[in-house]
Amino acid sequence: MIRISILGTGNVARHLCHAFKAIDTVKIVQVVGRNEKALKTFGSLIDTTSDFTKILEADIYIIAVKDDAVLEVSEHLKGKRGLVVHTSGSVSLDALSPHERHGVFYPLQTFSQDRKVDMKSVPFCLEAHDEPDLGLLEQLSFKISSKVYIVDTDQRLALHLAAVFVNNFTNHLYHIGKEICDKKQLPFEILYPLIRETTAKVGSLSPNDAQTGPARRGDVETMERHMRQLEHSRYEGVYKILSGSIENLYR
Amino acid sequence: MIRISILGTGNVARHLCHAFKAIDTVKIVQVVGRNEKALKTFGSLIDTTSDFTKILEADIYIIAVKDDAVLEVSEHLKGKRGLVVHTSGSVSLDALSPHERHGVFYPLQTFSQDRKVDMKSVPFCLEAHDEPDLGLLEQLSFKISSKVYIVDTDQRLALHLAAVFVNNFTNHLYHIGKEICDKKQLPFEILYPLIRETTAKVGSLSPNDAQTGPARRGDVETMERHMRQLEHSRYEGVYKILSGSIENLYR
Repeated sequence: MIRISILGTGNVARHLCHAFKAIDTVKIVQVVGRNEKALKTFGSLIDTTSDFTKILEADIYIIAVKDDAVLEVSEHLKGKRGLVVHTSGSVSLDALSPHERHGVFYPLQTFSQDRKVDMKSVPFCLEAHDEPDLGLLEQLSFKISSKVYIVDTDQRLALHLAAVFVNNFTNHLYHIGKEICDKKQLPFEILYPLIRETTAKVGSLSPNDAQTGPARRGDVETMERHMRQLEHSRYEGVYKILSGSIENLYR
Repeated sequence: MIRISILGTGNVARHLCHAFKAIDTVKIVQVVGRNEKALKTFGSLIDTTSDFTKILEADIYIIAVKDDAVLEVSEHLKGKRGLVVHTSGSVSLDALSPHERHGVFYPLQTFSQDRKVDMKSVPFCLEAHDEPDLGLLEQLSFKISSKVYIVDTDQRLALHLAAVFVNNFTNHLYHIGKEICDKKQLPFEILYPLIRETTAKVGSLSPNDAQTGPARRGDVETMERHMRQLEHSRYEGVYKILSGSIENLYR
């Protein structure tokens, strides 16, 4: 039995709690958070507290709060013997070094309030100051996921950056696609199959080999027409730099 | 029975031919193309020719060639009574106006040589000079797809532009993500679940509501760190302009 405490009440805390609740060999000792209303949503079967002086003993303390609150929350764990980890992609391992036993437990996924996530497929990126603690984190991760990676801070920061490109920026491109459709009274759904196929390809073809389009072909005429279509719109610069970036790569 | 001829031997021609072959009420009269080797791959059950003076009579001629070859190929159809259509997202309807009966039959999808496409879900964007021909194209499209749209040239050009954003540019962002992973000896597969979830969200949440990340939050500290990570790399400018574009949208 691994006894865990979750500190935080946001999307990551909630999804982790939900996943661990289903595991017989993990006991959620406590969920700790300032927000009492949010704590209530964890249900009556889970022990919760908003009083940071009443944190119970646990084997692992999982700090699942915003990046800039990790340090502050971790201070409430002074003197605890359990392993203290955070779930952030961009906070270093060392940030938790005041605790003898510290590590990182980073789920590389975007969690929304209203969407179920298949936790089994979420990659967990682990790091720990001591070897046995890394083993303990591995043990814990494999209980809810089949994808567990040992990733150091430098690698994790790179993943966090890569995630901005493939998730945040990609979503913004979808938004631009939607704006273009809206403007011409076209339903955005018309682009869904293309969006899905673009993503589905990733598993079977490297993005390098899958690249198509006017910039890939060096089709100046089409790019110029697209630029005229975008003239005076806020996305002219985005089109230009992405086309240029693709042209650079393949010429 | 609708008798069709396909002019071209590329990916679009091949996928259309494959889809129509399975339909009892469509007869593929001929596949016409310059490339004899490519013609052979269409199989012995289909009549093919590389001789453009031997084009047979058909109800619909589907020109599925590169944009800049559409006009030239269409000239071989002078005097034919059938409906002449092209499959291009960016060639105007008028380009085929030398033919009395002309239209557009544009499948909004990316077709690769080695990937099966579920044609049923491919949106077909139709346009025709005459109302009855539009009806004929609708009839034909619904035989292989359940998504059929009437789209004029102006709208189709917008779709073609939107497709560059959601397909070509998105794929490039995947490539950048892969490069970042490669550089730190991380397997690109680690990003697949995030990529899939980003896309899966599109159906249930508008991209506007789904937007997250440092630029959305106005998290200057994280953006500056990312910019330092990208310093002197070819993707610094891409990061900057996409972050700026998101910031602009939400501030």
